[in-house]
Amino acid sequence: MFKINENYQKLPGSYLFSTIAKKVSAFTQANPDKDIIRLGIGDVTQPLAPAVIEAMHKAVDEMGNAETFHGYAPDLGYEFLRNAIAENDYKSRGCEIAPDEIFVSDGAKSDSANIQEIFSQDNRIAVCDPVYPVYVDSNVMSGRTGVYDAKTETWSDVIYMPCTMENGFVPEFPKETPDMIYLCLPNNPTGTTITKAQLQEWVDYANRSGAVIIYDGAYEAYISEKDVAHSIYECEGARTCAIELKSFSKNAGFTGVRLGYTVVPKELKCGDVSLHGMWARRHGTKFNGAPYIVQRAGEAVYSPEGKAQLKEQVAYYMKNASVIKAGLKDAGYTAFGGVNAPYIWLKTPDKMTSWEFFDYLLEKANVVGTPGSGFGPSGEGYFRLTAFGSYENTLAAIERVKKL
Amino acid sequence: MFKINENYQKLPGSYLFSTIAKKVSAFTQANPDKDIIRLGIGDVTQPLAPAVIEAMHKAVDEMGNAETFHGYAPDLGYEFLRNAIAENDYKSRGCEIAPDEIFVSDGAKSDSANIQEIFSQDNRIAVCDPVYPVYVDSNVMSGRTGVYDAKTETWSDVIYMPCTMENGFVPEFPKETPDMIYLCLPNNPTGTTITKAQLQEWVDYANRSGAVIIYDGAYEAYISEKDVAHSIYECEGARTCAIELKSFSKNAGFTGVRLGYTVVPKELKCGDVSLHGMWARRHGTKFNGAPYIVQRAGEAVYSPEGKAQLKEQVAYYMKNASVIKAGLKDAGYTAFGGVNAPYIWLKTPDKMTSWEFFDYLLEKANVVGTPGSGFGPSGEGYFRLTAFGSYENTLAAIERVKKL
Repeated sequence: MFKINENYQKLPGSYLFSTIAKKVSAFTQANPDKDIIRLGIGDVTQPLAPAVIEAMHKAVDEMGNAETFHGYAPDLGYEFLRNAIAENDYKSRGCEIAPDEIFVSDGAKSDSANIQEIFSQDNRIAVCDPVYPVYVDSNVMSGRTGVYDAKTETWSDVIYMPCTMENGFVPEFPKETPDMIYLCLPNNPTGTTITKAQLQEWVDYANRSGAVIIYDGAYEAYISEKDVAHSIYECEGARTCAIELKSFSKNAGFTGVRLGYTVVPKELKCGDVSLHGMWARRHGTKFNGAPYIVQRAGEAVYSPEGKAQLKEQVAYYMKNASVIKAGLKDAGYTAFGGVNAPYIWLKTPDKMTSWEFFDYLLEKANVVGTPGSGFGPSGEGYFRLTAFGSYENTLAAIERVKKL
Repeated sequence: MFKINENYQKLPGSYLFSTIAKKVSAFTQANPDKDIIRLGIGDVTQPLAPAVIEAMHKAVDEMGNAETFHGYAPDLGYEFLRNAIAENDYKSRGCEIAPDEIFVSDGAKSDSANIQEIFSQDNRIAVCDPVYPVYVDSNVMSGRTGVYDAKTETWSDVIYMPCTMENGFVPEFPKETPDMIYLCLPNNPTGTTITKAQLQEWVDYANRSGAVIIYDGAYEAYISEKDVAHSIYECEGARTCAIELKSFSKNAGFTGVRLGYTVVPKELKCGDVSLHGMWARRHGTKFNGAPYIVQRAGEAVYSPEGKAQLKEQVAYYMKNASVIKAGLKDAGYTAFGGVNAPYIWLKTPDKMTSWEFFDYLLEKANVVGTPGSGFGPSGEGYFRLTAFGSYENTLAAIERVKKL
């Protein structure tokens, strides 16, 4: 008689954003006349840039012609894309990353969930708290997190690094030594980040303690301050301790296009075993490449036209971020983020819990946000708003919040 | 100090098709003047059908417009696609599969590798031998296969079901009781299949013994004989014991487009736990949907124009299959398959091993095929040729083989 992976039974509730979708759907059914504005899930709203659209049309035409048709993609991704990434995201910033250290994928969500597979089940993971739920959930599914305590909403074998107002949202080295450290910087959900000097300390810590850093740089395009690193490989020694995950979802609006990549430097080893080789094996066995059309779209992101158009798109969303932050301040809220990231992280008023504030905002202002506690226990009492709406909706939402 | 997943170290050699690619690349470098014909990896060569191209252009345009832009896709896939699948692949054949039992993915390779995750590590798997390498390799990676014996090229905890000339390539119920049974029908690599009555026996066996069948129906579009099931759900009782994986790679040439789906019926349970719910949770946590453009392409496969165009495409490849099989027969080879599947499985001549014949064919005829032993120990002494080349190349390849 077959048995199931019992670790799945340990997962409390459903995936955060599915829960929110269900709550909003129930509210909409009960109140069909209400005009809901969604600043909850981090989904973009602006259309793809013209340079990307043009590249995709061209690639579609190629797929319709026997001479230019493309079947299975190369395991790591097409060279044209890996070269563009190596040149623009690394070489131009003085980081030594070779094209064959870049693994093109269908998005950073898959990569951030799958990367734990190449590590031992005994490894202890450390996460910032609050954090993107996928890091912990994927480790729960593979049995790496121990026992869940429903009262504290924590796992016995996970090392939590609280990031709160009190420490300026900067994670501190944990008392217990972790084996795998997940860092998402600029951070989802808090919208805050750390300086390059602070990141260098984490790289040094990882090299000193033999930990590997899983560095999620999905929001890199939103960095506006000079002393913030755009890649962990800007730090000395990162090639021996860090894997970097990148996404095209937020810098180019590819949430519905699906493209990302993972960098595994060849120096990153456990004894004699290269993690690069392991990830290559995983990629070759469990994945069959991102679509040709999508990889051509990714290439267009790095063209001169693509760069200019996407710079504008990022600026558009960051204008929203300013509107949200200023509006919240006017309304008497304490809010963080929005300077190097498209997220605003606010303290809930009147000691409301995060979910109480979610319901309050949904019912009174018909605005959807994300409860901070959904990202971890230290997110309780906080709430996330995203800058990915349209400018008009963002303005309208903030006006409603101000009137509450 | 972090540790790695030691199971990866147990994997012998590299992924089959990577090894072939390297061998061919070395030969090409040494012999730049040779014109190589590839009938090895199961990659298609015909361009996408006009109906699919049209749907993709339309979807690209939608992505370039704020009013019609699509961000994150729904977890299970878009309804328009799931409805088309439920109607055309199931209802029309009298199978009861609801749209919400269909999970759209980026291809059957990912699904067939990932599906084992929701099962216990104690489960014993049974596979046909020879078999698509991903089933076993993905189970090796998660530590479900025991110890590898390099001499017999088998894993201690895998139950092998030999499919050879002697039993007409029909797997027999194994002596030991398996928990998970992988069946790929019509079969890759042998190109053979079993009747619906024989499949019903497997469904009954699984229900009787409490096993789950992972049914890979990637080659279903090539079925030409009437008594062969197009879906395992044509068999009575399959809803309580079977998961079905389907691909758009071979019926619609989507190897470079990436689209597939998995069916998990709601009745499929382990005690009280629904596997449907578990797979939904996995999908929601580790995957972020197939691209909107690709899902629209998938929908076009089911349009009247798409169906007509793809029927022609399948006929084109099956004409190749006939050419290969007839040519091999003329040349004195014993060959199987090619009637309900796009693969021809031949017995190597003169007691050559599969890899010896691979080298022989590459060097003497400049034709690339796939060594049978790469698919499992019972594949030794066999060789796979695919019908996915162009008609002209297929003819030329067979002429070269005849002249050997």
